[in-house]
Amino acid sequence: MCIKFGLLMLLACSVGVCTFATKIEPIVLVHGGAGDIPNMRVPVKFAGMKKSVKAGFDVLKAGGSALDAVEAAIKVMEDDEAFNAGFGSVLNTDGEVEMDASVMLGNLSAGAVSIVRDIAHPISLARLVMEKTPHVMFAGSGANRFAKEQGVPTVPPGSLVSPSAKFSLDVFKRVQAWRMETDHTITNSSDTPTEVKNPGDVGTVGAVAIDANGNLVAGTSTGGTNGKMVGRVSDTSMIGSGTYCDGDVGAVSTTGHGDTIAKVCLAHSIIKEMEHGKSAQEAAKHCIDKMTSRLNHTAVEWDGLTKKVTRYSQELNTTK
Amino acid sequence: MCIKFGLLMLLACSVGVCTFATKIEPIVLVHGGAGDIPNMRVPVKFAGMKKSVKAGFDVLKAGGSALDAVEAAIKVMEDDEAFNAGFGSVLNTDGEVEMDASVMLGNLSAGAVSIVRDIAHPISLARLVMEKTPHVMFAGSGANRFAKEQGVPTVPPGSLVSPSAKFSLDVFKRVQAWRMETDHTITNSSDTPTEVKNPGDVGTVGAVAIDANGNLVAGTSTGGTNGKMVGRVSDTSMIGSGTYCDGDVGAVSTTGHGDTIAKVCLAHSIIKEMEHGKSAQEAAKHCIDKMTSRLNHTAVEWDGLTKKVTRYSQELNTTK
Repeated sequence: MCIKFGLLMLLACSVGVCTFATKIEPIVLVHGGAGDIPNMRVPVKFAGMKKSVKAGFDVLKAGGSALDAVEAAIKVMEDDEAFNAGFGSVLNTDGEVEMDASVMLGNLSAGAVSIVRDIAHPISLARLVMEKTPHVMFAGSGANRFAKEQGVPTVPPGSLVSPSAKFSLDVFKRVQAWRMETDHTITNSSDTPTEVKNPGDVGTVGAVAIDANGNLVAGTSTGGTNGKMVGRVSDTSMIGSGTYCDGDVGAVSTTGHGDTIAKVCLAHSIIKEMEHGKSAQEAAKHCIDKMTSRLNHTAVEWDGLTKKVTRYSQELNTTK
Repeated sequence: MCIKFGLLMLLACSVGVCTFATKIEPIVLVHGGAGDIPNMRVPVKFAGMKKSVKAGFDVLKAGGSALDAVEAAIKVMEDDEAFNAGFGSVLNTDGEVEMDASVMLGNLSAGAVSIVRDIAHPISLARLVMEKTPHVMFAGSGANRFAKEQGVPTVPPGSLVSPSAKFSLDVFKRVQAWRMETDHTITNSSDTPTEVKNPGDVGTVGAVAIDANGNLVAGTSTGGTNGKMVGRVSDTSMIGSGTYCDGDVGAVSTTGHGDTIAKVCLAHSIIKEMEHGKSAQEAAKHCIDKMTSRLNHTAVEWDGLTKKVTRYSQELNTTK
C-alpha cells in the first residue's frame, strides 16, 4: 500500500470546556507513524508506543501539564530505533540524520525546528523555541546554534544513525540505480522516489494530550523521508501541516506522505472543519478524502513505483 | 501603529471557473509589505509596486502564465531596495541576509525556501523546488546546495545587504541596549523585540495572479524581521501561512507580523473561510479579526514597545 493517507491523532474539546468547574479526565494519545510497516516490525512499534503513552500518562496522573506529557511521550519514541525520529531517523541522500519537530498549545503558542542535527530530542528543542524566543521556527545550523545557546547537549556526529536506517538508505540507493537501468521512461527529477517501503522506513511520531485543567497540546517529531534531499523541510515542522492545536477546537498530529500533507495543511484543515461543526472523525475523513482526491495523481504515480520497490526490497532481503 | 495586522492580496474564483469557454480576464495584484512605513518611503514603494505589477501584467498580456507573472512581479521587488526581499532584505542579528520565499499553484503544487543566502531571487528558487524536486521546502545550506545543483547563480556574500537595512539593524541594536538600560522589568528573552519601526523595516512582498486560462497562483518573498535570530524561519516560507492557493477557491499572499501569522495559518484560514461561503473580503476580515482577538496580548505588548522605539528612532534620525 502506498503511503498516501495521513494517520492522525486528534483530541477534540468543545468551546468553553475549560470554564467548567468539573475536573477534566486527562488523556494522552500517541502515534508511531503511517506506512507499509512489515509484520516483523509491528511488535516493537507497539511496545514502543505503549512505553511512550505510559510516559505521557504518568505525567498527567501526577498532575502534570499536557505540554510535559506530550514532550515525555515523544521523547520515548525519539530514543527508540523502532521509530523514525531522533535515534532511528531515516537518512538523507548523504547518509545523515536531519530532524524536524513541532509543538503547539491551545493558546496558539507554537515552536518548531527543522533539519537539526545531532540533537537527541528535537521535540524539546521545538518547545524551547516556543518558550524562549519571539519566533515560531528555526532551521539548519541556526537551529543548532540556538540549541547550543540554550545549553541543549549535542550528541556525537553519526550517533543518531541506526543500523536499520543505514539499511533503508542502502535499499533506496540500490532501487534508484536499478530503476534508472530498467525504466528509462522516467527521467524527470521530480519523479525521484522519496519513500521506499522497507523495514527501516517506519514513520513519524506524534502525541496529543489534554490535562486536568483542560489544556490541549499537540506535538510531532520525525527524521523525514528515507533518501530525502539534503535540506528538505518536512510537514512535521510546519505549523498547520504536521501539528496544529487550538484550545477552542482540538489538537492534531499527522503522519504520512509529508510532501502531500504540506500542500493541504492537513492538521489545520481538520481543525477548521471541526470549527465549522464536524466531529474529529468526520473532519479527519473529510480532509483525508479531499487530499487523496485532489492529489491522487501523485499518489498513483508513486504507487506504480512502490510496487517495484517493494518487490526489489524483498529480493534484497532474500539475497542479503 | 503596531504591525499586528496582515496586509493581504486575494484573488477569488468560483468553483468551476476554468470550465467556462469564455476567455478570463487576466489579473495580477501585488503587495509591498505591511508596516509603519514612514511617509518619505511611500513614494519609492509605490513606484516599485507599479513597476512590479506592470512586469507581471506584461507577462499576462502576452498570453503568459499566472506563474510567470507572479514570478516576474516579485523579482522586480526583490531587486528593489525599497522592499524587504532580495536586495534590501532586513538583517539578522549577525548582520546577514537570510531570505524566505514560497509559491503555490491552483492545483496545490507548492515550493518554498527558507533562510537562503546570496541568491538574488528566492522566489525563482522556490519555483525550482516545486518544479524540480518531489519536496515542498528546503532550508539553509541545503537550499543553497540545491540552488547550485540547479545552476542558480549566487551573488557575492554581503552584496544583498543594503544601506537602509544596515541602518535598521543599527537602530534595532541601539534600541535593545537602550531598553535594557531603561526598562529592567522586562527580562525574558521572549520579550525581545523583533520588529523595529524605522525606515529600513519595509515589509514582505507578494503577488497573486489569474491568467487567461483561469490558473491561479500566489507567491511571497521576504527578508524576515529586522534583528531576527539567526536561522529563524518566517511565515513567508510556510505554505498555509505566507502563501496559499487553491484553484477551486482563491489565492492569498500575506504580510505583517510573521510570527503571529504563522500561529493562525493565515493564508490557509482565509481560503478555508472562502470555501465555507465567505467572500474574499469577508474571509480576510474574519480571519484577521480572529487573529487579533486571539493573539492580542502579544500585539499590545509590542505596541507599548514600539512607541518607545519609534521615539528613539526619531531621535536617532535627528542626531545622525
